[in-house]
Amino acid sequence: MSENTYPSVNDLTLEEKASLTSGGDAWHLQGVEAKGIPGYMITDGPHGLRKSNSATTGEVDLNNSVPATCFPPAAGLSSSWNPELIHQVGEAMAEECIQEKVAVILGPGVNIKRNPLGGRCFEYWSEDPYLAGHEAVGIVAGVQSKGVGTSLKHFAANSQETDRLRISANISQRALREIYFPAFEHIVKEAQPWTIMCAYNCINGVHAAQNRWLLTDVLRDEWGFQGIVMSDWGADHDRVASLNAGLNLEMPPSYTDDQIVYAARDGRIQPAQLDRMAQGMIDLVNKTRAAMSVENYRFDIEAHDEVAHQAAVESMVLLKNDDAILPVAGDAKVTVIGEFARTPRYQGGGSSHITPTKMTSFLDALTERGVDAKFAPGFTLDLEPADPTLETEAVEAAKGADVVLMFLGLPEAAESEGFDRETLDMPAKQIALLEAVAAENKNVVVILSNGSVVTVAPWAKNAKGILESWLLGQSGGPALADVLFGKVSPSGKLAQTIPFDINDDPSTINWPGEEGHVDYGEGVFVGYRYYDTYNKAVDYPFGFGLSYATFEVSDVKAVKTGACTATVSAVVKNTSNVDAAETVQVYVAPGKADVARPKHELKGFKKVFLKAGESAEVSFDLDDRAFAYWSEKFNDWHVESGEYAIEVGTSSRDIAGSAVVELDGDGKAQPLTEWSNFMEWRKDPLGSKVLEKLRAEGEAGRMPIVPDNDMTRLFLDSMPINSMSVLMGADGKQIFEYMLAEYAELTK
Amino acid sequence: MSENTYPSVNDLTLEEKASLTSGGDAWHLQGVEAKGIPGYMITDGPHGLRKSNSATTGEVDLNNSVPATCFPPAAGLSSSWNPELIHQVGEAMAEECIQEKVAVILGPGVNIKRNPLGGRCFEYWSEDPYLAGHEAVGIVAGVQSKGVGTSLKHFAANSQETDRLRISANISQRALREIYFPAFEHIVKEAQPWTIMCAYNCINGVHAAQNRWLLTDVLRDEWGFQGIVMSDWGADHDRVASLNAGLNLEMPPSYTDDQIVYAARDGRIQPAQLDRMAQGMIDLVNKTRAAMSVENYRFDIEAHDEVAHQAAVESMVLLKNDDAILPVAGDAKVTVIGEFARTPRYQGGGSSHITPTKMTSFLDALTERGVDAKFAPGFTLDLEPADPTLETEAVEAAKGADVVLMFLGLPEAAESEGFDRETLDMPAKQIALLEAVAAENKNVVVILSNGSVVTVAPWAKNAKGILESWLLGQSGGPALADVLFGKVSPSGKLAQTIPFDINDDPSTINWPGEEGHVDYGEGVFVGYRYYDTYNKAVDYPFGFGLSYATFEVSDVKAVKTGACTATVSAVVKNTSNVDAAETVQVYVAPGKADVARPKHELKGFKKVFLKAGESAEVSFDLDDRAFAYWSEKFNDWHVESGEYAIEVGTSSRDIAGSAVVELDGDGKAQPLTEWSNFMEWRKDPLGSKVLEKLRAEGEAGRMPIVPDNDMTRLFLDSMPINSMSVLMGADGKQIFEYMLAEYAELTK
Repeated sequence: MSENTYPSVNDLTLEEKASLTSGGDAWHLQGVEAKGIPGYMITDGPHGLRKSNSATTGEVDLNNSVPATCFPPAAGLSSSWNPELIHQVGEAMAEECIQEKVAVILGPGVNIKRNPLGGRCFEYWSEDPYLAGHEAVGIVAGVQSKGVGTSLKHFAANSQETDRLRISANISQRALREIYFPAFEHIVKEAQPWTIMCAYNCINGVHAAQNRWLLTDVLRDEWGFQGIVMSDWGADHDRVASLNAGLNLEMPPSYTDDQIVYAARDGRIQPAQLDRMAQGMIDLVNKTRAAMSVENYRFDIEAHDEVAHQAAVESMVLLKNDDAILPVAGDAKVTVIGEFARTPRYQGGGSSHITPTKMTSFLDALTERGVDAKFAPGFTLDLEPADPTLETEAVEAAKGADVVLMFLGLPEAAESEGFDRETLDMPAKQIALLEAVAAENKNVVVILSNGSVVTVAPWAKNAKGILESWLLGQSGGPALADVLFGKVSPSGKLAQTIPFDINDDPSTINWPGEEGHVDYGEGVFVGYRYYDTYNKAVDYPFGFGLSYATFEVSDVKAVKTGACTATVSAVVKNTSNVDAAETVQVYVAPGKADVARPKHELKGFKKVFLKAGESAEVSFDLDDRAFAYWSEKFNDWHVESGEYAIEVGTSSRDIAGSAVVELDGDGKAQPLTEWSNFMEWRKDPLGSKVLEKLRAEGEAGRMPIVPDNDMTRLFLDSMPINSMSVLMGADGKQIFEYMLAEYAELTK
Repeated sequence: MSENTYPSVNDLTLEEKASLTSGGDAWHLQGVEAKGIPGYMITDGPHGLRKSNSATTGEVDLNNSVPATCFPPAAGLSSSWNPELIHQVGEAMAEECIQEKVAVILGPGVNIKRNPLGGRCFEYWSEDPYLAGHEAVGIVAGVQSKGVGTSLKHFAANSQETDRLRISANISQRALREIYFPAFEHIVKEAQPWTIMCAYNCINGVHAAQNRWLLTDVLRDEWGFQGIVMSDWGADHDRVASLNAGLNLEMPPSYTDDQIVYAARDGRIQPAQLDRMAQGMIDLVNKTRAAMSVENYRFDIEAHDEVAHQAAVESMVLLKNDDAILPVAGDAKVTVIGEFARTPRYQGGGSSHITPTKMTSFLDALTERGVDAKFAPGFTLDLEPADPTLETEAVEAAKGADVVLMFLGLPEAAESEGFDRETLDMPAKQIALLEAVAAENKNVVVILSNGSVVTVAPWAKNAKGILESWLLGQSGGPALADVLFGKVSPSGKLAQTIPFDINDDPSTINWPGEEGHVDYGEGVFVGYRYYDTYNKAVDYPFGFGLSYATFEVSDVKAVKTGACTATVSAVVKNTSNVDAAETVQVYVAPGKADVARPKHELKGFKKVFLKAGESAEVSFDLDDRAFAYWSEKFNDWHVESGEYAIEVGTSSRDIAGSAVVELDGDGKAQPLTEWSNFMEWRKDPLGSKVLEKLRAEGEAGRMPIVPDNDMTRLFLDSMPINSMSVLMGADGKQIFEYMLAEYAELTK
């Protein structure tokens, strides 16, 4: 099939062009029947296909959809730190789309987990934009490698649910560039998602859908995005403004295409802009046509379940393992407590809620493996008070067991798209049950099921082992059995910090905003960037995760490779007799900087599988962005000259070694002006020459002399030279005009 | 002498008017000789008169001035919580101005201590705007009661020294109104300062001097300010823009009055605006004329020293007094350690630095009282390393003493106008000396001399007693002797929190800003408003201070007196056998609110002197502002209906009792629109009627039915009704248009 099978925009009428810029119904593009352009289906992901059974009616009913493989949501998958695995998930999802004739699967969502209370944290990737971008790119590349489109979302800064359709996220340029944009930027540059979905919210007062700076200046002109932008469902409040801003597609349709027609006629939309937006839609249909033309495709349910299984295994993070209580010995007397073991919570609520192809609970998985274990549900999966009968039964069941596996977590009602959480704490009845069980049997392992971070410290003393299993998708049960019984070692690493208290989070002061706006007052200090920089205690740091094996990272070496680039290498060794994977993490720690920079930032990671006793060398190329900050002064990235420590470790707080490189920097400098202060003049090579000349002229009696005593030194350093009159009256003016003239001479 | 002795602005030429809008030299107004208008002197305060000896030369040399009484800087005086005493200080300063023919004394500075590292914290009043306003108003009222002017400064948001001439303080409207403005607002409304000095910095991008919203809309039109605004020295960068904004006076002169003349001629300045600004200057000269005409006035040096003495006594805050180590018994064997006892640090550096009329060190005061004490300086008052000889000598001197009085503090080089501090910590050599001394003698009392908060926790275990004496002015030595030996009980209360660590302060993330701006990301959560709301541990809370006496606060009663007002009363009793003063503090704690409000805020205080065993009732009228927050939605103060707890206590964390009032609120409400969400429609009396009617119409088949399942309920609540098409396609539009029409009908 050749490119441009469909007519170009030049073959369409104004009305036809307009019609392309909104959907056909809630889950379809609008075709142009007269010109043979089909209206393909697009529907939700992002951790599996959610194709609504009621899709053709145009209704939005999120809990009724055709079966599809349910992979772990991003909260789990992000803990894998394994882009190749994530790529496989993407490929599998694409195959399901091909079977179901879905041209674009909506996702992944790479918004930053600014605050762990965020309602959609379970479907976002990380508090760190590097990690989010370098993991989620696997979904985009994987899906699109099969000829199906993705929709990278929600662009941008949709980090909360509260008042999400109206609220203005007020964010500094620097925080946007360093925290809220890079995951999008990386994926656009690396994998060119065919579509991007704009966010509901405003950014600095302008709705994302109408934000030309966002959708055109940054996304297309700076980053080179080639695809189309669609609205989140209901995010487009002004068709004309949005189209002018660079929004190609309103979803779902509000049946207001006539507004586009009128605006194009009366000049409020330029013909070129409408053509550009409509041509984008035709290009999209062209890209998807090959896959959409495949007939009778059937994906391999078992193979996809196997991918979901591996993804689930790598999603678990072992937080605590005192007395090596895990793995459970094959002959151990096991008691399982907790309704989650029987009725798993394996995905979150909202637009991502899918119907799995199969579902094996942990209890089922034990039965399949012939493991004989006592079970007591202990509590119900609702927000009702504790049931004393269930509690007593559970405590009774714990008696005499070699190990008690307690499945605790957040009930479905606790987290979903549509609202933010109000607490990080686990339900009180589960904590009380844990305490009662631990009083009876000290050998307790807690397995957590939750989409977003919960506090662990308040109850951790009652568990020798804690396995954070997030939401594991449909194969969580068997995967848990593999990990708990030691068939495979856990290898997940936290993609987000677990704090002691929500009040420790610096965004909490400005969460979730008020009166229509939320000020991102913490700036770039999100997650570990705050905790590590300000030396704040956390329960479990970013990047943390235990293994059944032990590893040693050594021989950290860094070499400068250019003015603003370097490589770093290290050796990682499995020092145990257990085969397992370790994730080596690279953080860059700038030295003295002109702006407040995080203590260190993740700039590379590699997951390495090592057999017992094996070792490997890992190396990382660090480009200029690894060392840069966004300078609002230059309105650009800036690498300062100076020393940078490159740290290699296994969490943000377990740095095995570091090496320092001294970089030249990018040489950017601002010209001196009357608003530059004396310190800036002194530090500038030409400025210092001017000051020398001024001094000489003063000594020769040809210029007034700049006073030189304690107080004036104190004031001068921070004083723009145009304020010289404060110190010297009219003479001051003479001095700074002289300085400017001499400087102009030197820079001519 | 009659009003308007001087010609009005109508009698002046354009050039004469222009000439009034800048100074005659660095420390004088510009007179108009031809019209008989004098150029009076204006010069620095704020804790005493700093009249430069080199004043007539127009130079700025801050350390050479004629003798004047040095009262405690605001850091100390603010701890008195005694507006009447502060009023006396003001009266005394005015008398010194009359003697020296100074028409306006520049101060007080009521900027908020946003971060304790701020370089001018020693001359600002508090982290709390209510306290700052209600204390500093005493200076303004006191000075002006004698016919001398004040200059309330630095308006506004000059809370740091770093880059102060250029930096833009980016602050939300709410934080400006609730935190950075109220001290100014209260003093303007209560005491009408004759002048106000604008800040160096920009506010939200506009230099204070050129900020018409600030200098005209808010200051004059909203608050009713009647005086003139002058620039801080060198803060006026654009004469024309500043004059148009409402700046009457450029200081010091840049000799650019011709710019005003040209601008008036070519219409860039309206005649009325120039007249207004110039007339303000004539009015000022008229106001000051009476006092400036007094000849051969001589103030009473001894009487003023006595005021300074009392102010010093009330400035000290007793932080710790284990084993009742203070007061020192009359017959105790005393060792005094620390150079500060011999060479007191009694004021800060910069424009407020004055030459005292007399100076009695603590050692001198002991000698005067016939107390025989060993003395060892222990360390030098510089930033040099420790001197082992001095250390050994000090430890030796401590041996066998009943009590060791250790005078520690910050050397002068550590804090001043012109730069911000980089650490809250005490000099390492002093901490080391304290440790060595404490190892020798457990009965150590530390007396601190510092203008801004220092950390206490790192060394507190080595001292049984800690007396925070701030900077005490010229009579600090005798005052310290009075307090330490029990002639009078300490009664000071902290006007600012002492944190454990500077990283605990929420403004530290955004301190001191970068690339020309500082974002006040913590919003209204400054000082205890942060610590108390987010339940963060502090070393010593706001409002805290011990006494030699003990007190009991009881019988807290509150009564609603109007829709938005209440009174509260309580009984305070001296339960000891020592006469002393206690400061009763009233905090208002709002219940559920539409915005994130501080847990509680200071809204009243009263210092009560009670003889041993005596008790008194105190009562407070709370006006609507005591309950209001600044609503950006209403662009106005807003009192919500609901419950408010009124707390009475002796620090922000020692609340003795509280009483709840239920207020009606101010009834402000926003009309519903298509942008109101379903929750807002439901909560509104008319909106809920519309929804009922819509339901009935739907059931009757005349309107589409709003879907009602879990997911839609979830989405609807936060959805503006104009987004109904997300859920319902074209039907949605019909629904919200119906709702708007019905609502319009009801509100007709």
